[in-house]
Amino acid sequence: MEKYEVFRSLAIIIIAAKFFGLCARKLKAPQVVGEIVAGLIVGPSILGLVGYSDFLGYMAEIGVMLLMFTAGLETRISDLRKTGFKALLIACAGVFIPLACGTVLYMAFYGFAPWGDEEFYKALFVGLILTATSVSITVQTLKELGKISEFVGTTIVSAAIIDDVIGILVLTIVIGIKDPAQDISSTFLMSGLFFLVSLVFGYLFYRVFKRIDKRWPHTRRIPIIGLALCYVMSYCAQKYFGVADITGAYVAGVILSSLDDSTYISRKMDINSYMIFGPVFFASIGLQTDIKSVDPSILLFSLCFVLVGLLSKIIGCGAMSRVCGFKGRDCLKIGIGMMTRGEVALIVAQRALSVGALSGAYFTSVIFLIVVSSILTPIFLKILYSDKTPKAEVVTDTTS
Amino acid sequence: MEKYEVFRSLAIIIIAAKFFGLCARKLKAPQVVGEIVAGLIVGPSILGLVGYSDFLGYMAEIGVMLLMFTAGLETRISDLRKTGFKALLIACAGVFIPLACGTVLYMAFYGFAPWGDEEFYKALFVGLILTATSVSITVQTLKELGKISEFVGTTIVSAAIIDDVIGILVLTIVIGIKDPAQDISSTFLMSGLFFLVSLVFGYLFYRVFKRIDKRWPHTRRIPIIGLALCYVMSYCAQKYFGVADITGAYVAGVILSSLDDSTYISRKMDINSYMIFGPVFFASIGLQTDIKSVDPSILLFSLCFVLVGLLSKIIGCGAMSRVCGFKGRDCLKIGIGMMTRGEVALIVAQRALSVGALSGAYFTSVIFLIVVSSILTPIFLKILYSDKTPKAEVVTDTTS
Repeated sequence: MEKYEVFRSLAIIIIAAKFFGLCARKLKAPQVVGEIVAGLIVGPSILGLVGYSDFLGYMAEIGVMLLMFTAGLETRISDLRKTGFKALLIACAGVFIPLACGTVLYMAFYGFAPWGDEEFYKALFVGLILTATSVSITVQTLKELGKISEFVGTTIVSAAIIDDVIGILVLTIVIGIKDPAQDISSTFLMSGLFFLVSLVFGYLFYRVFKRIDKRWPHTRRIPIIGLALCYVMSYCAQKYFGVADITGAYVAGVILSSLDDSTYISRKMDINSYMIFGPVFFASIGLQTDIKSVDPSILLFSLCFVLVGLLSKIIGCGAMSRVCGFKGRDCLKIGIGMMTRGEVALIVAQRALSVGALSGAYFTSVIFLIVVSSILTPIFLKILYSDKTPKAEVVTDTTS
Repeated sequence: MEKYEVFRSLAIIIIAAKFFGLCARKLKAPQVVGEIVAGLIVGPSILGLVGYSDFLGYMAEIGVMLLMFTAGLETRISDLRKTGFKALLIACAGVFIPLACGTVLYMAFYGFAPWGDEEFYKALFVGLILTATSVSITVQTLKELGKISEFVGTTIVSAAIIDDVIGILVLTIVIGIKDPAQDISSTFLMSGLFFLVSLVFGYLFYRVFKRIDKRWPHTRRIPIIGLALCYVMSYCAQKYFGVADITGAYVAGVILSSLDDSTYISRKMDINSYMIFGPVFFASIGLQTDIKSVDPSILLFSLCFVLVGLLSKIIGCGAMSRVCGFKGRDCLKIGIGMMTRGEVALIVAQRALSVGALSGAYFTSVIFLIVVSSILTPIFLKILYSDKTPKAEVVTDTTS
């Protein structure tokens, strides 16, 4: 590919994303829905104008990293401390209830299998695919609605982060049981170590940044060094601790969230995000999907899979939030906010395929789940928020 | 390459670029020198921490596009109109004098060859490599010094743009003479057509943007649609007219430069540029260089090549600016501003290699010329500007 060819893809993506984003707003839906739909329309599913490429994949990765970094920056640490234990409980419910429901769903379709049986593992992997929440769509929606810094928003984001870690641990355990060569304990150890190291280094970095911030407030170097920290933590999280890179980015944001200049950093990141990387990330969800190539033989299963996937998260997380003392509507917000699935679901499906526990046909179901949940979550969240808070409308108008 | 691996490269580049950029400032040199040196140091030449990859290449291309787009945005059209004919003359001098000097240099080293001889073509190609100015370093330096919108700045940028087009035409003619299958006239036609089409569509786009700008001033959509225009023009320039993509980006900037919100667009682009793409672009100049692998057999030739390359541009463009009525110091500024070479020189060398007119050993000379000119230009420009205008110092301080 010639270098200038990237401008063609970027031009089509940004024009389509902006156009469908505005259409979505006209229809009172969040813009992010329009951006995902834009990807579906210009991608291989419909028009075939832009194909998914490695370059777009990297750009999308930077996009989701920036998104999680700003979510971290806008977190109130006091809220995080208050929400910590509740988020852990909600995350556990959000992992184990979908896991159980997915396993049962597979058995309902293809017959009961006892523990240890090949079919049992297949069922278990179907459940595993349902465990990982992808919080980026929810984060973007909450930002659009101006609700990301609220207590419910912080709860959702931190629960999703913990959910991700628990999901990886459960995946490791299941693969470990199937293939004893895998080392389960080190995965546990490294995940724990990541948060410990983050805590220690995070505090050190925070002190350093506070001095820089005091000495040179509002200079370019603050967001630049902040971004560098975000890159480093994203990379180290995934490379050395086996934790998702976006978790590293979020933690980097949380570390810097108490700085005086945190809003300043966040604003700069936001510009990078909405101008270039954000549209690429959201459109790439649609771009990676090719509706034409889906396997029709498992359409009925896919339909049930999507339903079970959405409901198990809503009910699991919603019920647990209720237990944790959240009010009715807030429970629903948390449940809905946690129901989006993203590429982690595809990665789990890929792992299942590679250990021979699942056939490629199930990718259809996973893609349906990702697309449907990505489109429904923002719409439902907006409805839930707009009923009680007419002010949200105003916030959306000024920021777009 | 795993997706998260890009964060490692980006982290190293941004930290090194910022660090050496600050060191350069301490030494009273422009930051961009530090960023290029950062690439040399972390790249294969010295530390080998980061290798040049396709991804970094694409990022760098977006970086130089953003740079030229903002240079266009900060152009005063009245200046451009006034400078137009002068810039054309300066560009002609900047093409033909280095072309002649390079040809003579080769013959001085390897013996005189008559017109049409194989050796004559080799000499001609050495001259051709010297023709193309790479204006990005100069643009960044002038921006740092706060001089990009001044008359001399506009003259340099527009002369460099015209220089580029003339350089491509001359290259096409030479290849056409060597290989009659090449169609020379269509290259001429398309270059002319590009500027004609830009004029017509540019005016239409300008009217459309003016309406958008009036109806929704200071909204995100203005810079987003502006960026989309820039992508489209960069792509079309290269794809359909054979004109460099950065010329398209510059023209897109000029089209939008008369809008009320042009500073607003430019500020948003600047943030994208200095946070992410700029450091990658400047560092990538150093990254692409591997000093260890240079061919020692032509070191003496390289030394003379660099000297002739720099002096021929300074003298050629400087003398012609004098003819055009510029004052002494301004002539030197224009000469120095035009002396930077970049990847176009490498592309010409590549073309010469592919038509069998030059051996790979000469890449060493070209790389030396690029690195030396990229580092010297900002330093000389800063000296030239700072002597008379102590205010420039202040501008540098507040923007970094």
